[in-house]
Amino acid sequence: MGGDQGHEVVLNGIARVLKKREDVFFIVHGPAKTLEKLIRRKKRLSEFVEVRDADDVVTMDAKPSMVMRNGKGTSMWSAIDSVREKEASVVVSCGNTGALMALSMLRLRKLPGVNRPAIACLWPSRNEGGFNVMLDVGADIRADETDLIQFAKMGASYARNGLGIASPRIGLLNVGTEDHKGRPELKTAHDLFPAVAETSQFDYVGFVEGGDLPSDKVDVIVTDGFTGNVALKTAEGTAGLIREFLSQAFKATPLSRIAAFLAITSLRRLGKRIDPRRVNGGVFLGLNGTVVKSHGSADATGVAAALKLAIRLTESGFNERLAARVASGLEPGHYADQPEAINEQMQ
Amino acid sequence: MGGDQGHEVVLNGIARVLKKREDVFFIVHGPAKTLEKLIRRKKRLSEFVEVRDADDVVTMDAKPSMVMRNGKGTSMWSAIDSVREKEASVVVSCGNTGALMALSMLRLRKLPGVNRPAIACLWPSRNEGGFNVMLDVGADIRADETDLIQFAKMGASYARNGLGIASPRIGLLNVGTEDHKGRPELKTAHDLFPAVAETSQFDYVGFVEGGDLPSDKVDVIVTDGFTGNVALKTAEGTAGLIREFLSQAFKATPLSRIAAFLAITSLRRLGKRIDPRRVNGGVFLGLNGTVVKSHGSADATGVAAALKLAIRLTESGFNERLAARVASGLEPGHYADQPEAINEQMQ
Repeated sequence: MGGDQGHEVVLNGIARVLKKREDVFFIVHGPAKTLEKLIRRKKRLSEFVEVRDADDVVTMDAKPSMVMRNGKGTSMWSAIDSVREKEASVVVSCGNTGALMALSMLRLRKLPGVNRPAIACLWPSRNEGGFNVMLDVGADIRADETDLIQFAKMGASYARNGLGIASPRIGLLNVGTEDHKGRPELKTAHDLFPAVAETSQFDYVGFVEGGDLPSDKVDVIVTDGFTGNVALKTAEGTAGLIREFLSQAFKATPLSRIAAFLAITSLRRLGKRIDPRRVNGGVFLGLNGTVVKSHGSADATGVAAALKLAIRLTESGFNERLAARVASGLEPGHYADQPEAINEQMQ
Repeated sequence: MGGDQGHEVVLNGIARVLKKREDVFFIVHGPAKTLEKLIRRKKRLSEFVEVRDADDVVTMDAKPSMVMRNGKGTSMWSAIDSVREKEASVVVSCGNTGALMALSMLRLRKLPGVNRPAIACLWPSRNEGGFNVMLDVGADIRADETDLIQFAKMGASYARNGLGIASPRIGLLNVGTEDHKGRPELKTAHDLFPAVAETSQFDYVGFVEGGDLPSDKVDVIVTDGFTGNVALKTAEGTAGLIREFLSQAFKATPLSRIAAFLAITSLRRLGKRIDPRRVNGGVFLGLNGTVVKSHGSADATGVAAALKLAIRLTESGFNERLAARVASGLEPGHYADQPEAINEQMQ
């Protein structure tokens, strides 16, 4: 169904991916008649795209608990089920994040050993590869010390398979780097981390602060979903404000307008580096199947970025490796929740 | 004593303020001999600056609880006591934030009716005045619904007196704008806010997200000190990263170097708008006296900005008005803590 922008943006994103690859196939879920009409209009799309009819829509403001009860006829449910039935390797959606997580937990179930799934995002950074990983950016609003340690394991797995970093450096987000700072669960996790890092083959670099999110001292930043979500949206908002100020600065005088023209290539490169569309794609970690959440407001470039990320993760066998990694640290009492429990969690 | 940069930066900041004003006097606290030597070197400083000898230093990594027990001979203690003794109208410090808050609570005491003091900062925004207010950015790591409501009252008072906004619009930071989103204390505060807004003469605009921090839909953003601190440092880090990318973009090609030269005035104006030094100065709200915290890494421009903010707040009679405002909403059970309680709180 697409996000705020509707079906067409999704099909345009697919078309962009197909320009470079011919070994990827798509199943699109939504109203068959409308979709088929749009697909016929686009060259080559019909060859690589199959339509699955689903008339209902999960709206952007739908409550996750309602969608779990009544969402069976929606395109979102249908898309997730295509991964559940192993027809598809990965699902990509621009829809309602809370509903997507709730339905993914309900239909795909959590990996054995995972208490809370998390959403991981890529963060522009000073590291060689250009990105850090941060999680959780909004799957849940809480995380205790056990969750934070699982986030670290899952984030390390993502950094290994998604970014190709053999031994990722993990930092725990806090309000200061001193040992005595922060909430109780952070201090407990901080004490437990060195031992976990050794068995899970990552480096624990200790507490990091908000200013370290784009740092080259760390590859993966672990935090609860409330803090992570605020940090992510704050960074996007700050980048947006600066982009606005920058464009105003270049329109301020005739001289600065000439300057903007001369610097256009360099400014475009800058634009790409800080363009949130290019880092589009939150990955749901901790489920039996990979789910990639694209921004609701994503345009074709954004959708294509999310699709490419989904393809990269699938090709690396990411989810199987993640499952093995988490299972190796399986602790008693941490099994997949029943729908009732999920339901309560997603309110 | 200054922050990371030592005494000289503080004196340079004072000198900058004195260039424009002759009706402000300073008491500087630190090692008398060293300070007097530096002051003699600077034109006009000795006329407006008095030295108070204090040899001990609160180091940047000192634990607040230790400073409360053993900090009596420090420059920080001495500076706060000059407000306590009504020799000074306001104290400005570049030192250890946790220690400054702990000593301020111990020596100045909380205003009657205030449970948790908060640190408010200015946030570059799309609003006409150029700034929004956010609090708490790190006085404490927690805040319950009562605290959040007090933060709103104090933030509204700050916006009125510091920014001249008659009826400030208050938003509550959350992971979404829908009523069902977020932590329990946020939902409770959200339900209580409309009634409080009416009696306290501010507008409650509801939940806001990280992306709304620079928005022109809101003047004051209320959050707990953990989230606020992470958001503040994330925004600073993002702005820093973009500044770096921008300067790289302008050095990329000969053409872009010419462009940078042509656009230099506009770029300088942009630099000013996003320069964290110009918004330097966290204000401690909820104490019997005004305390302004400057960045530890502030240079003379940063120190001068913090001093100007301190002067502006003092001249507006800010703290007296704030006290009256908070007292008007006095609830039983919310009186100033004893030192032991403060001590525990600042761990």
